[in-house]
Amino acid sequence: MQQIIVRPIGKIYSPYKESSNIPIQGTFNSEVDAYVELEEKYAGGLKDLDGFSHAIILYYFHRSQREEIEGQPFLEQNKHGIFAIRSPHRPNHIGLSIVKIKKVEANKLYFTEVDILDQTPVLDIKPYVRYFDCRKDIKCGWLDKHFKDGNIPDATILR
Amino acid sequence: MQQIIVRPIGKIYSPYKESSNIPIQGTFNSEVDAYVELEEKYAGGLKDLDGFSHAIILYYFHRSQREEIEGQPFLEQNKHGIFAIRSPHRPNHIGLSIVKIKKVEANKLYFTEVDILDQTPVLDIKPYVRYFDCRKDIKCGWLDKHFKDGNIPDATILR
Repeated sequence: MQQIIVRPIGKIYSPYKESSNIPIQGTFNSEVDAYVELEEKYAGGLKDLDGFSHAIILYYFHRSQREEIEGQPFLEQNKHGIFAIRSPHRPNHIGLSIVKIKKVEANKLYFTEVDILDQTPVLDIKPYVRYFDCRKDIKCGWLDKHFKDGNIPDATILR
Repeated sequence: MQQIIVRPIGKIYSPYKESSNIPIQGTFNSEVDAYVELEEKYAGGLKDLDGFSHAIILYYFHRSQREEIEGQPFLEQNKHGIFAIRSPHRPNHIGLSIVKIKKVEANKLYFTEVDILDQTPVLDIKPYVRYFDCRKDIKCGWLDKHFKDGNIPDATILR
């Protein structure tokens, strides 16, 4: 299989038009509202998603123009392998965010805990299921030192 | 943006050649071993991933031949919107598994907690980061009744 064609199923509408002031992950600025608008033919796919508190959104990092093997994350100067960081400049440019569901209306999913740029093409939405998505005894490599003792680093919001 | 071309960066090697006996999620049969073999040019991308206990693997459900708007999950007879279940028969056929890392060697990532078929094309690997991937106060809609009071349903392993 040499290549796979995927098609956006909808688009993100978010107040973040540029990457300034955007949190590196949505939990670090949880008051902001956004929504996904799906193509109308996919509206039925949202049925029963409103019973879940959180969803996983997969999307295309449409503003990234490059592909790196190693990259420097926002939290520090050191470089790490691209598969050990969440940078957009990765092979295939697929992004993943866990968002907090507010409501579903027709073909729109409204949510908070947003870290996604406006106009981002959406590839998939999955329910966040604590029985398999929430793990215990987790080690987070180079990240643990930044969040030690409950610390939230300043660099979690891009300036 | 009408279509997006993605390319497999590697492949899954797993003992599950068919969907019989495969768990619906890897945590339900955690003793099985598998690995991702990346194309050699991506080996450097795995640098420092071994400091993490878990990784998120995104892959292509290459055996699914159809796309549904609603589907019936393995755990029950009721149908739900495709974005409220984890079925492979979804628009874009992108799968997501959280796996437990055993070790990284050159272009290979060895892991347990496997629910992925052998030969599955891999699209991305991300570190699992508890500071944003592990949420609290989670409601899981139609799934909660199946896991009530710590119950693990029989249908978590496909027969």
